[in-house]
Amino acid sequence: MSLHLELKKEYNRLNDTKKYDIIIERLKERGVELVDIAKITYDLQKPYVKDVTLEICLDHVDRVILKREVQHAVLVGIELDVLAEKKLLSEPLLSMLLGDYGLFGVDEVLAFSIVNVYGSIGFTNFGFVDKSKPGIIGRLDTEGKEEGKCNTFLDDIVGAIASAAASSIAHKYAQ
Amino acid sequence: MSLHLELKKEYNRLNDTKKYDIIIERLKERGVELVDIAKITYDLQKPYVKDVTLEICLDHVDRVILKREVQHAVLVGIELDVLAEKKLLSEPLLSMLLGDYGLFGVDEVLAFSIVNVYGSIGFTNFGFVDKSKPGIIGRLDTEGKEEGKCNTFLDDIVGAIASAAASSIAHKYAQ
Amino acid sequence: MSLHLELKKEYNRLNDTKKYDIIIERLKERGVELVDIAKITYDLQKPYVKDVTLEICLDHVDRVILKREVQHAVLVGIELDVLAEKKLLSEPLLSMLLGDYGLFGVDEVLAFSIVNVYGSIGFTNFGFVDKSKPGIIGRLDTEGKEEGKCNTFLDDIVGAIASAAASSIAHKYAQ
Amino acid sequence: MSLHLELKKEYNRLNDTKKYDIIIERLKERGVELVDIAKITYDLQKPYVKDVTLEICLDHVDRVILKREVQHAVLVGIELDVLAEKKLLSEPLLSMLLGDYGLFGVDEVLAFSIVNVYGSIGFTNFGFVDKSKPGIIGRLDTEGKEEGKCNTFLDDIVGAIASAAASSIAHKYAQ
Repeated sequence: MSLHLELKKEYNRLNDTKKYDIIIERLKERGVELVDIAKITYDLQKPYVKDVTLEICLDHVDRVILKREVQHAVLVGIELDVLAEKKLLSEPLLSMLLGDYGLFGVDEVLAFSIVNVYGSIGFTNFGFVDKSKPGIIGRLDTEGKEEGKCNTFLDDIVGAIASAAASSIAHKYAQ
Repeated sequence: MSLHLELKKEYNRLNDTKKYDIIIERLKERGVELVDIAKITYDLQKPYVKDVTLEICLDHVDRVILKREVQHAVLVGIELDVLAEKKLLSEPLLSMLLGDYGLFGVDEVLAFSIVNVYGSIGFTNFGFVDKSKPGIIGRLDTEGKEEGKCNTFLDDIVGAIASAAASSIAHKYAQ
Repeated sequence: MSLHLELKKEYNRLNDTKKYDIIIERLKERGVELVDIAKITYDLQKPYVKDVTLEICLDHVDRVILKREVQHAVLVGIELDVLAEKKLLSEPLLSMLLGDYGLFGVDEVLAFSIVNVYGSIGFTNFGFVDKSKPGIIGRLDTEGKEEGKCNTFLDDIVGAIASAAASSIAHKYAQ
Repeated sequence: MSLHLELKKEYNRLNDTKKYDIIIERLKERGVELVDIAKITYDLQKPYVKDVTLEICLDHVDRVILKREVQHAVLVGIELDVLAEKKLLSEPLLSMLLGDYGLFGVDEVLAFSIVNVYGSIGFTNFGFVDKSKPGIIGRLDTEGKEEGKCNTFLDDIVGAIASAAASSIAHKYAQ
């Protein structure tokens, strides 16, 4: 392979790692630790992969967040939540986001581009956690209902990352 | 509008109605009545649309099945289940279908083209029923585990139609 | 049907019509007239539906924009373009949008939720116009490269609406 | 990691490699060599990655076919084409497949689960090759119109693999 291609590849790798750090930081600022996401993944996969550990789940959450497709969806989603809180969005978008309007749908669309990175088997898990709202997802949902607070995208993003990590584990270990 | 276009439009309408009849028949042959699907839709929408009735749900299940995208996905899915039971598929596809292989994924892919017809808000409902397996979905899942029986596509198809009908109702009546 | 349900249905209908007016306005502010979109649809469908007219295409563009899923994707996409121009987005999102970063992908994800409303047959048309950039899409693409201007989402949105309208026509008249 | 998990991981890896061999064989039987697919990928990526070679493209086509999601979609699609030629499908599915019915859509749905494995940026390339029909895709399309021959799924599958490989290259080397 040419040196030129090698350099581009290396540049891209570094760039994704840098974005990974930014995303970890953004999630923290919004009250989400990776271990919170890994716990949901663990509960999803425990019935199917007996030997799975929280550590393995955390490793797969990491892999998901290293994917470019995921990074960009997360950046856009969190940005929109934050802009809604700062009232920097125009109407009628602002009201739909602050009210977590059930027919909005763009939050699910972004979430699906995340779930998708490990294939269609993640859809089921996403739908399940989005409805049953375990752990951090329930907390984000409740918090998002407070005056001036917006987690419209974030709760779906967290559910999507947890589900994608579950798919990643399933693809690796399930028979 | 020209007579030519009017005739084509009428032809397409009749063609879809004819396929609708075929699909109702196929579902019946595989043990599924539309009212079974409507019951799942009812349970999904009751918490959100207080005045919803089973009759309204049945009407929306009908609308879903009149959509061309849905009809084709249903025809392909049921065909593959039936061909698996008749052992007319080649390996390794045959074993994956007869064993309802968890990492197969094509069943979810087809289901999603069904759920999609009323937008992304249906994804959550699909994931939920696919995991909680209410009513007819649970029966199909159990039956599919019997020797020589294959419902790998059908249980996802039923869940997808029920979820799409729920989305259709939500889009019409929810605020 | 109960009066309660009838009222909700009417409310939703009015709400979508109101959003339709807002979207027409936003598109105009960004330099896009519906007839520009309809012209792309016309060129896409002319080879398949001989009697199609620009008027029919404009009618189907209208139908697409009356769909809630489409309205929300358009509102989010245009909002992000405008916020990028006003430098109200945080990094690294701002630079990716202003530079129309080829590996971003969220623009395609939103576009796909638009194309999807008339089924999977629209995917091909979307990919084609996104690459060949006919008419207004080419103009938006060129304009978006100017300093301080951002059409990262808009050119995909326009291509997606044109493709969805083409699918809508195909579903109605093609044999 | 426990020995149990290591064994499962190894089993899955071997299983995918075995399916890879089967898929290469099936594609050959239907007249498709991997290098035919790699040539399309090369033409798609050459304008963006100057140093790309046919060998690199072939390597990325290989990576795509090693993905489970892709393998299953390919197996289902080719199976349906072959069953149509053998007249082992029931009506109206048989006629839709033999006639490559333009409003069918399930071929695009399967193709999209393939394109998706390297993210949404592949959608555009897929739409483009599906419409411009370069190289082997054009040959499959023409051949599929012969009496008793069916390539309804295969031409979309080939276009999808070529596009996914192009995305894979773009993600690795593009800046």
